[in-house]
Amino acid sequence: MSRGQIARWALEEVHADYAQSLVDWADKSPVFLDYNPMGKVPTLVHHADDGDRVITEAAAICLYLAEMHPEAELLPNDGEMANYYRWTFFCAGPVDQALTAKALGFEPKGSKQEGMASFGSFARTTATIEEFLDGRRWICGERFTMADVYVGSSVDWGLNFGLFPPSEPLVAYAERCQARPAYKAAKAIDGKLIAEMGK
Amino acid sequence: MSRGQIARWALEEVHADYAQSLVDWADKSPVFLDYNPMGKVPTLVHHADDGDRVITEAAAICLYLAEMHPEAELLPNDGEMANYYRWTFFCAGPVDQALTAKALGFEPKGSKQEGMASFGSFARTTATIEEFLDGRRWICGERFTMADVYVGSSVDWGLNFGLFPPSEPLVAYAERCQARPAYKAAKAIDGKLIAEMGK
Repeated sequence: MSRGQIARWALEEVHADYAQSLVDWADKSPVFLDYNPMGKVPTLVHHADDGDRVITEAAAICLYLAEMHPEAELLPNDGEMANYYRWTFFCAGPVDQALTAKALGFEPKGSKQEGMASFGSFARTTATIEEFLDGRRWICGERFTMADVYVGSSVDWGLNFGLFPPSEPLVAYAERCQARPAYKAAKAIDGKLIAEMGK
Repeated sequence: MSRGQIARWALEEVHADYAQSLVDWADKSPVFLDYNPMGKVPTLVHHADDGDRVITEAAAICLYLAEMHPEAELLPNDGEMANYYRWTFFCAGPVDQALTAKALGFEPKGSKQEGMASFGSFARTTATIEEFLDGRRWICGERFTMADVYVGSSVDWGLNFGLFPPSEPLVAYAERCQARPAYKAAKAIDGKLIAEMGK
């Protein structure tokens, strides 16, 4: 039940040929920690022709996979690029910070602290993404791009944990994401793994 | 003295034709808030042939400018792409969160909270970027790319505010960044503005 699910959805969207290694949270292997000293999942190791390439950070993995698989047509064109980068970083930065802070019971106090925190306040961050998604199909307009895998995962996660309000723009966007065949394929694999671990 | 300085450095690196509008923090204009409801700087408005495009989030502005100015040769090639995305998002996410949390006097407690926060702990985040930069010239290797504008700004900021330890890998990397002509040009403009405002 980790950020690894974001990478799985992205891998399924580009039909990547991949193998998974599950990480034992209480006993991380030296090989894994060598790839990612932060000890975090997801960590992607791309066995490229010129050697292994390590990519960490779920959003970076999404954008990297879109670049490596142009045939999946999830890269932005020139006119889509502003929203593609803007909202991916908005979710990787302010939204992730706001959700983490709320989950940990921390909120900046006063305008000075709000100015220091990139998310300002939880309410403003939520309102900003909500307003943007209102009446909009996907992040870049009418076409699904890799930005939707990351933004969609953030919105989905925030709603599932009751951190985001279940407002119409957020819920409708999450439902459009959930209807993607690759989302369903990824969740089926993760759901099975979670069930097996629970035994 | 804001994140706007990151955008200025990026604009100078690509030799963009730009005009600035300073934002009065205590009295933000409706036009500005319409462009960015978060009320944050930097906010870039690109007057493109197909209409205005708004880009917020300093890291997104950097990557967008690199894409719009391929002649500046700050985009990654295929073999550089993993590090380009990985470390830009590492700084936009974990590093920004860790520095903000430290500046606000907040630190996750115990392994459960550390697992929830994307930066885990301040010490581990610092050690990870330090270790990566040790013995390395730029983020993508021997060549400066737009990733260095964002990562360099993060390291520079963390050192200037005494949040990062002044270790050799961090200080040497910051000095290489400070030697860039575009960095110097940007800081000269910002320094003049800061001095004028202080009068």
